[in-house]
Amino acid sequence: MTFSFRLTSTPAGPVSPRTGVLSTARGNIATPVFMPVGTLATVKSLLPDEVAAAGASILLVNAYHLYLRPGHDTIRDLGGVHRFMGWPGPILSDSGGFQVFSLAKLMRIDDDGARFRSHIDGSEHLYTPELAMEVQRALGVDIAMPLDHVVAGDAPEPTARAAAERTLRWFERSRASAGGLATFAIVQGGTHEALRRSHARELAARNAAGYSIGGLSVGESKEAMWAMTEVVNAEMPVDRPRYLMGVGSPEDLVNAIARGVDMFDCVLPTRLGRTGAVFTDLGRVNVTNARFARDERPLDAGCDCATCRRFSAAYVHHLFRNEELLGYRLATIHNVRYLVRLVARARAAIDDGSFPSFARAFLAGYRSANQDERAVQRAKWGERPGRGPARDDDPWV
Amino acid sequence: MTFSFRLTSTPAGPVSPRTGVLSTARGNIATPVFMPVGTLATVKSLLPDEVAAAGASILLVNAYHLYLRPGHDTIRDLGGVHRFMGWPGPILSDSGGFQVFSLAKLMRIDDDGARFRSHIDGSEHLYTPELAMEVQRALGVDIAMPLDHVVAGDAPEPTARAAAERTLRWFERSRASAGGLATFAIVQGGTHEALRRSHARELAARNAAGYSIGGLSVGESKEAMWAMTEVVNAEMPVDRPRYLMGVGSPEDLVNAIARGVDMFDCVLPTRLGRTGAVFTDLGRVNVTNARFARDERPLDAGCDCATCRRFSAAYVHHLFRNEELLGYRLATIHNVRYLVRLVARARAAIDDGSFPSFARAFLAGYRSANQDERAVQRAKWGERPGRGPARDDDPWV
Repeated sequence: MTFSFRLTSTPAGPVSPRTGVLSTARGNIATPVFMPVGTLATVKSLLPDEVAAAGASILLVNAYHLYLRPGHDTIRDLGGVHRFMGWPGPILSDSGGFQVFSLAKLMRIDDDGARFRSHIDGSEHLYTPELAMEVQRALGVDIAMPLDHVVAGDAPEPTARAAAERTLRWFERSRASAGGLATFAIVQGGTHEALRRSHARELAARNAAGYSIGGLSVGESKEAMWAMTEVVNAEMPVDRPRYLMGVGSPEDLVNAIARGVDMFDCVLPTRLGRTGAVFTDLGRVNVTNARFARDERPLDAGCDCATCRRFSAAYVHHLFRNEELLGYRLATIHNVRYLVRLVARARAAIDDGSFPSFARAFLAGYRSANQDERAVQRAKWGERPGRGPARDDDPWV
Repeated sequence: MTFSFRLTSTPAGPVSPRTGVLSTARGNIATPVFMPVGTLATVKSLLPDEVAAAGASILLVNAYHLYLRPGHDTIRDLGGVHRFMGWPGPILSDSGGFQVFSLAKLMRIDDDGARFRSHIDGSEHLYTPELAMEVQRALGVDIAMPLDHVVAGDAPEPTARAAAERTLRWFERSRASAGGLATFAIVQGGTHEALRRSHARELAARNAAGYSIGGLSVGESKEAMWAMTEVVNAEMPVDRPRYLMGVGSPEDLVNAIARGVDMFDCVLPTRLGRTGAVFTDLGRVNVTNARFARDERPLDAGCDCATCRRFSAAYVHHLFRNEELLGYRLATIHNVRYLVRLVARARAAIDDGSFPSFARAFLAGYRSANQDERAVQRAKWGERPGRGPARDDDPWV
């Protein structure tokens, strides 16, 4: 396994901000790190060059989606997912546990795995922990996730406990079939503190390559999300990377880094970008707003992205008003760069000891858009073909 | 007026292939030249860098569209259209004569100009030859078109004659208000040979900076289109550039170059690209076809575009199957590069004396898609909000 992690700063405790380096065969990744989401082997609307120019050092793809289409055999035969999508750097794949539960039709689950019908063509599938690893080996990714049993954010304790126990058994089976692929363990347990703690301890004892915090950012309160993050990180071995799946917004990233999280992925920068919403240090603004119609300044005066360096807010506004494809792209470039740079700013602040003041100043200045996001999630709920909670890496949201 | 044209080869006659150089303040342009269409100050889905990397030396924008939104005043206040869209090279603008007639609602025309309601918001406008020039001066383009009176391709001779006479009067008014802007004259006359010839003669006597052939590629037969092109070019001063508006497909470009045309624009590469249709020397192919699902070769083995150099046909197929925005972009990059390179190949063949054999071999190998294109035009007719003929620079087609 060509994978290692080392801290490059000394955290005050297990739930404190930290910097580190993830080493993979395809390159090193400074942590904390934001990983842009390329569900279907494409970061929506962007070329790999643009993702790299935005400063991203690692991408995420989704094994469930690529298993269904074009199929992992096809990608393996075409030389693996790096060659397929033209991204030579490190790639982490999600097993698709969340997507199986949220997108698939007629899903039934038992200890074997998940039986379901494809949301694309209705075909029948049995997706097992072993198959999820086979898919990820065929893709040739650098970091894999085991299949996990995801339950709704408001699931009662017994339900969440059964799913966590199954997730533990599946982790063992996944590791046994990993074939040398660096495989994280995923901590589940809903918002049940004792369950989260015991599950985290069980997994911590199993010496995984890294640890993912799953089942959060699925509609629970922010308070619950941070409480669970703290409970889990308190149990984690300090020398393993911690990945908070599906997070997040700028303020969530800063809050999670403050609690000792190292890795993040989220579709917000790409999904919001396609609606004209762009991140700034003052909060999100929407470039379709008429106030940008004659604004010759960039979207974000403090930004060094390829969009802000070259185009006025007025031009991006014009593109959105006319539903021009280039608009989606320019806003996406900005948003991806914004999150990558935000995490880099946090990293630098940790290294020079100024993280507490950085985080305080950032969170004081950033107008949260949480209410907007929840409204969007609620509004879209009815459009989703599957079941389960809405989350950011859910393409139907 | 910083505009000139000189031939760099000696054509056998007025209707023979020729090479030349257009000189503008923003750069020289080797002719024959294909100009990608950026109707709304964006070549759909592409950054200016990508358009330049595809080899384009001049773009087209549309004065009618930019007049309506965002408004020429806005673009002037933001530093002109070059700065607005981030393209420092030469730009030619169409006055929008064709769009006024095809898109505007409740259009009424008299010698003053065209009165109509905007297809966007229903607002009332009087678009005059003077206003069209004012718009183009505000945009700050390098080559302008006068407002012309366009009639349907099948208009009877008296209708076409009245429109051609009005176009001539409008040309005089346009030139009087050009304020130093290089302004072409547009030859109209439908498919009426004698009318085309007399209109061409009238305009040729007026020593315009260049000559556009308008009112073709609007549904008439190919035979009629080439007959009219020959009639017009026979009357054109040999030392002025000739621009066949709205053309065309690969075979149309070769056929027009054979008849002494120097300049072209067409939305085919961008519009077709968004449907998955890509040009090759054997004809158009559609990358959504299942035969590309596992094809590790590029879309077009002979192509040097940024798509074909880096991505397999299988990857582009995958993107289209999943309606990924990057797919539209990769196909567009290929198509724009294909037409720019095709015209460059024709130019080289003219210069080394091999054009007749080049054209013969190309046309023999290229499977024409004319029937497909006409079917598309017919099928879309009902969706168009305005009146008049469908043409490639009509965004509703």
